[in-house]
Amino acid sequence: MGEKMAKRARRKAADESLEDEDKEVPIKGRDIETMGKLQRLATAVAEVAKKRRDPYLEVPSRSLSNSNYNRRKRLIEMGGKTNRRELFNLNQARAYMQTILVGSGCSRLIRQGKSTSIRGMYYMLKHNIEGTKENTFEDQSESDTIIEDLEVITGAMREELHLYAEPRGNLAGPLVVIDGGNELDASKMGAAGYPIPSIVEPDRVKIKRCDAKFILHVEKGTVWQRFNEDKFWQKHNCIVSHGAGQPARGVRRMLYRLHSEYKLPVFCLLDNDPWGYYIYSVIKQGSINLAFESMRMAIPDAKFIGLRSGDYERCGLKQNVTIKLDDKDKKRAKQIASYPWFSEKKHWQAEIKQMLTNDFKLEVEALISRDISYVTEKYVPERLRNNDWLD
Amino acid sequence: MGEKMAKRARRKAADESLEDEDKEVPIKGRDIETMGKLQRLATAVAEVAKKRRDPYLEVPSRSLSNSNYNRRKRLIEMGGKTNRRELFNLNQARAYMQTILVGSGCSRLIRQGKSTSIRGMYYMLKHNIEGTKENTFEDQSESDTIIEDLEVITGAMREELHLYAEPRGNLAGPLVVIDGGNELDASKMGAAGYPIPSIVEPDRVKIKRCDAKFILHVEKGTVWQRFNEDKFWQKHNCIVSHGAGQPARGVRRMLYRLHSEYKLPVFCLLDNDPWGYYIYSVIKQGSINLAFESMRMAIPDAKFIGLRSGDYERCGLKQNVTIKLDDKDKKRAKQIASYPWFSEKKHWQAEIKQMLTNDFKLEVEALISRDISYVTEKYVPERLRNNDWLD
Repeated sequence: MGEKMAKRARRKAADESLEDEDKEVPIKGRDIETMGKLQRLATAVAEVAKKRRDPYLEVPSRSLSNSNYNRRKRLIEMGGKTNRRELFNLNQARAYMQTILVGSGCSRLIRQGKSTSIRGMYYMLKHNIEGTKENTFEDQSESDTIIEDLEVITGAMREELHLYAEPRGNLAGPLVVIDGGNELDASKMGAAGYPIPSIVEPDRVKIKRCDAKFILHVEKGTVWQRFNEDKFWQKHNCIVSHGAGQPARGVRRMLYRLHSEYKLPVFCLLDNDPWGYYIYSVIKQGSINLAFESMRMAIPDAKFIGLRSGDYERCGLKQNVTIKLDDKDKKRAKQIASYPWFSEKKHWQAEIKQMLTNDFKLEVEALISRDISYVTEKYVPERLRNNDWLD
Repeated sequence: MGEKMAKRARRKAADESLEDEDKEVPIKGRDIETMGKLQRLATAVAEVAKKRRDPYLEVPSRSLSNSNYNRRKRLIEMGGKTNRRELFNLNQARAYMQTILVGSGCSRLIRQGKSTSIRGMYYMLKHNIEGTKENTFEDQSESDTIIEDLEVITGAMREELHLYAEPRGNLAGPLVVIDGGNELDASKMGAAGYPIPSIVEPDRVKIKRCDAKFILHVEKGTVWQRFNEDKFWQKHNCIVSHGAGQPARGVRRMLYRLHSEYKLPVFCLLDNDPWGYYIYSVIKQGSINLAFESMRMAIPDAKFIGLRSGDYERCGLKQNVTIKLDDKDKKRAKQIASYPWFSEKKHWQAEIKQMLTNDFKLEVEALISRDISYVTEKYVPERLRNNDWLD
């Protein structure tokens, strides 16, 4: 009994010690627009309820069947299909509640002038629904899905909703940004370059000056370090970026902004394997999962300057730096070959076919077997000089 | 026939186009010492051969049985056992050849003033041994092992041998470094902070000024962003770092340097689970795999300020932010409890026991359920004020 009371007292103390949970800040800039979108959603729901009609949300469908390759714009777009999500529908009530909950969570973040990770949002909103044993969310995959729903419903990107991811990817080159109030010169950063934040919207990252002529985007940080050590970006007056594999949204947005605001061509130096092809595809046409973001992230003019199956011979590589394709590689290669944005291009069909005939893949690092700086001093400069890439 | 000749011509052209493979630079600073270590190794081998005795290397054993917990120094050390690696021994000739090869590769890197990744080193050295079908290395795990051997043989760290890893981990705070010739102020970086390079040896990263009073090291980048957004490092005059999980060697070296050169206490904010405990253990006592590096990386005075099993009640957390332990968690927890540096500490035994009794783990993010800034404004400040941590 005493134990229980002590417990309660401790809990109470902990509760009371939590002050100013809702310290609010003035809403400025882009946040005004995002807040407007969230408020329109809330108002619409409230209006319907006031009129004593059943509340519902119209949720654009994010299924594969609702994504199309737009041949004119050369990117993957979301179609017009929507699904109605109703409160008074046993199958939809839970998702309805979750959507409104995430909406109110994002609005709280904006009002507090704070951001959190998608995992943070999950913890922020997870609780028992009063008087029941029902959790608002069982696990993070539930809230992650709802966050994407909210993006398509409101037309506000996750980044605008104050949700960030683990930052991943760096760049270096003649670029000056104002990030968090600090002026940063990406030509004067350290050995790891300028770390690209998860959120690079103009409110947070202003591009102050950009003297680069193009962007070379490489797959991995270790390859990037070779380019940085060899001062490639200085010699070629460009920006060299990497995304530590499949680039995060922050990296894609940054490339997109540099491409669209400064007209910088984007060249992608990726591995000669299905995973390298797919990274290129996502940068260029957008991803199938996030088709609704293509408009703000895809770069249809991006070029593939990565390794090709013919490089084995062209660059005089030896058999022992090749890696045999496994079943997963082959399956993925065939899948990729059938995507319309690859299937309608003869040179890509030939490229993928040759990789399958070779029965091996080639990593960018294989070029080190020629010389440690072969990739920075020969391979890429020659490709660029000869306009020799895949489109 | 014509096809074959064309192939040969192309290969020849590719070979000839590769100029100045061995452009050398003056060897300076720490490199002089490292080069000396490699040369002593080479000379010893050559001397023995000239005397017509069988060449061999004495390789300190990196096995678990040759690592000991040094109670006085409070770190994991490598014992004195060595294994002889002989050229004229069928079982050892291959590893002998590989060791000499990696040594010559590293010496080439130093002479060229370049660095590469451990994957790059693998590609650099992989070839057919002349007149045979034998590869110098079958896969990267072979060269990685030899690189660690070379570290213990020469007493030079991988970083000193010009080998880097994918950079991982960032920091922010009142710290000014000179990195790659550029002065960087870690209190004036962007949203992602100062990215800690893979190699932070004094030759490459000079610490120019450090006004911080302590270091708060957090587990993940997403938690770090909360601390950075709340300007924790400004309010508490400290450095806040993260390692994106188990910290890479660069991060550990950076913490070590700040701790030993500037006497900064190190507090680790980690999850209440076996993986959080082990990150703490590696930062504090060094890792079992790399026992030979403990002297230059371990921080025996580091404190665990992370979540503890008692926080569930103390912080008034709800059941639905706990995560049930699975079998892997339980097994790992028992393993960790038995390491001498945990087993000899009553408070750690109690902590691990309570976690097992609770049958759940707690992530740092669980505190968001109290308030988004609970961790930065209440949890950590209170712990610090009350000297309330595990040692």
